Amino acid sequence: MERDFVDWLRETLPPHPLLKIGPGDDAAVLAMGDASEIVVTSDLLADGTHFLTSEVDPPLIGRKCLAANLSDLAAMAAQPLAVVVSLLLPRAGAGRQDTWQLARGLYKGMLPLAEQFGTSIAGGDTNVWDGKLAVSITALGRVTERGPLLRSGAQVGDRLLVTGDLGGSIEGEHLNFTPRIAEALLLHQNYDLHAGMDITDGLAVDLHRLTVASQVGAEIVAADIPTSPAAERLAMASGGDAARHALTDGEDFELLLAIPAESAEQMLRDQPLECGITQVGQIVETGLWLQNAGGARQALEPAGYTHQ
Amino acid sequence: MERDFVDWLRETLPPHPLLKIGPGDDAAVLAMGDASEIVVTSDLLADGTHFLTSEVDPPLIGRKCLAANLSDLAAMAAQPLAVVVSLLLPRAGAGRQDTWQLARGLYKGMLPLAEQFGTSIAGGDTNVWDGKLAVSITALGRVTERGPLLRSGAQVGDRLLVTGDLGGSIEGEHLNFTPRIAEALLLHQNYDLHAGMDITDGLAVDLHRLTVASQVGAEIVAADIPTSPAAERLAMASGGDAARHALTDGEDFELLLAIPAESAEQMLRDQPLECGITQVGQIVETGLWLQNAGGARQALEPAGYTHQ
Repeated sequence: MERDFVDWLRETLPPHPLLKIGPGDDAAVLAMGDASEIVVTSDLLADGTHFLTSEVDPPLIGRKCLAANLSDLAAMAAQPLAVVVSLLLPRAGAGRQDTWQLARGLYKGMLPLAEQFGTSIAGGDTNVWDGKLAVSITALGRVTERGPLLRSGAQVGDRLLVTGDLGGSIEGEHLNFTPRIAEALLLHQNYDLHAGMDITDGLAVDLHRLTVASQVGAEIVAADIPTSPAAERLAMASGGDAARHALTDGEDFELLLAIPAESAEQMLRDQPLECGITQVGQIVETGLWLQNAGGARQALEPAGYTHQ
Repeated sequence: MERDFVDWLRETLPPHPLLKIGPGDDAAVLAMGDASEIVVTSDLLADGTHFLTSEVDPPLIGRKCLAANLSDLAAMAAQPLAVVVSLLLPRAGAGRQDTWQLARGLYKGMLPLAEQFGTSIAGGDTNVWDGKLAVSITALGRVTERGPLLRSGAQVGDRLLVTGDLGGSIEGEHLNFTPRIAEALLLHQNYDLHAGMDITDGLAVDLHRLTVASQVGAEIVAADIPTSPAAERLAMASGGDAARHALTDGEDFELLLAIPAESAEQMLRDQPLECGITQVGQIVETGLWLQNAGGARQALEPAGYTHQ
């Protein structure tokens, strides 16, 4: 059955101009073109932690696993080049699907996303075991002539902007999000970005990471945070605060950017992204702060969703 | 505790001249130097399948996981450039070690091997879950000006040679083997290699793969197979055949090479490798054959160890 799966995979994976040797040899061979630097990132997602095979269809699981990796390339403003996919498949399958139906389902969710973002699936490793499903993906990207977008360049006075809206991703967005590759490349090309990352564990936690990497502080204006409809529904149902969801829910996979004031103002006037881009605060010298509706400033705890 | 581990990791991982941005950002950034092609390979090794955490110390497990990946780079005659390491750690730890002792132990086994073969550990992902230990490693390498060594170039009349000796790796060699990086680079530089791969599932199975990729057949001379002392011990104890162990045990991580006759003869005269290199057969038009001591030829079943 694994033989059949590997044959199916070789027939199914499309060719890619930079993939000189694809699956089937001891390793894949990639042409680098004129790239002098590559970006490499790896994410391992597991049943019970990042998704539930008992509740989510395999194509959606596969899609999420690949999208999470592509989001890390977006966070570096890198163009996807190739991914390798390693699977740990449960011998008993998942739900009503046997092991190989599950494996095919995962790929069926990854393939359209790989095509959309121009990345080859260059190979990987497929294993069956008695444990639960785990999907380990490593993504390779090429940086543009502007170089990689790092977490470490934010400067005091920079504006903090986010793409899209935040919070409530557990309602479905964590499975359906679009990695902000195109947005990152467009912004990095046309504006002056000092620092950037993707929001995986919630704005509060990830902003803290950016400030640590840049050795600065930051202040967020609660009223300015773009909250998602899902965050608003959750807040309505619980009597809570949509901004709190936006700060802590995580798995938004939106971009958080630190941009010098003039370039940020230009970007906000231009509104170059379909998903929207919003100013949520600014870089300050030290500390992590949240400005409430009344204008009062309180310490912002770097708390959010962490995968245990 | 994960925080502590990540801090420990950042302090412990050595710098590398080609690793421009290491662990800590959304992705690592690697300088390519003058490489126009890179090789990428991924292996996922899991408790119960590739190793037993109940019996093997974590540094030996970590070493094996990295060595198996480096062996795939050797199989392509590529120089190691960087690896990324993703861990699925059991929440309960393993044996008397807690989760983070286990994680450190794995890295303590990987670090000397990474240093020995000049590869950076560029990043990865660390997860804790309720399941068993799994280690997913992706290795990146650079091909030399001779290009990658593929499985697909073998021609009728080529001699089949193997490095080192084969069989009985379960007695310990599967944890202690040296990936044949230096050997592959030296041979690829100085001789005419038509095709090559590493022996992971046993000579019989892997030779079959090479012949399929090259669209040829092969004949092995049983008496010429270099059998390891462990294979001989196992055969002695069971009353079996050491050559059978060498053909089917797997996890030898030696090189299997198809070399035109003249270059093979030169190589055998030169004996340029400390581990030795031995002719075991030749490429024929079709079929997979084993020549026995009496000179009789029988079909060689492509059977061996497969990780279930």
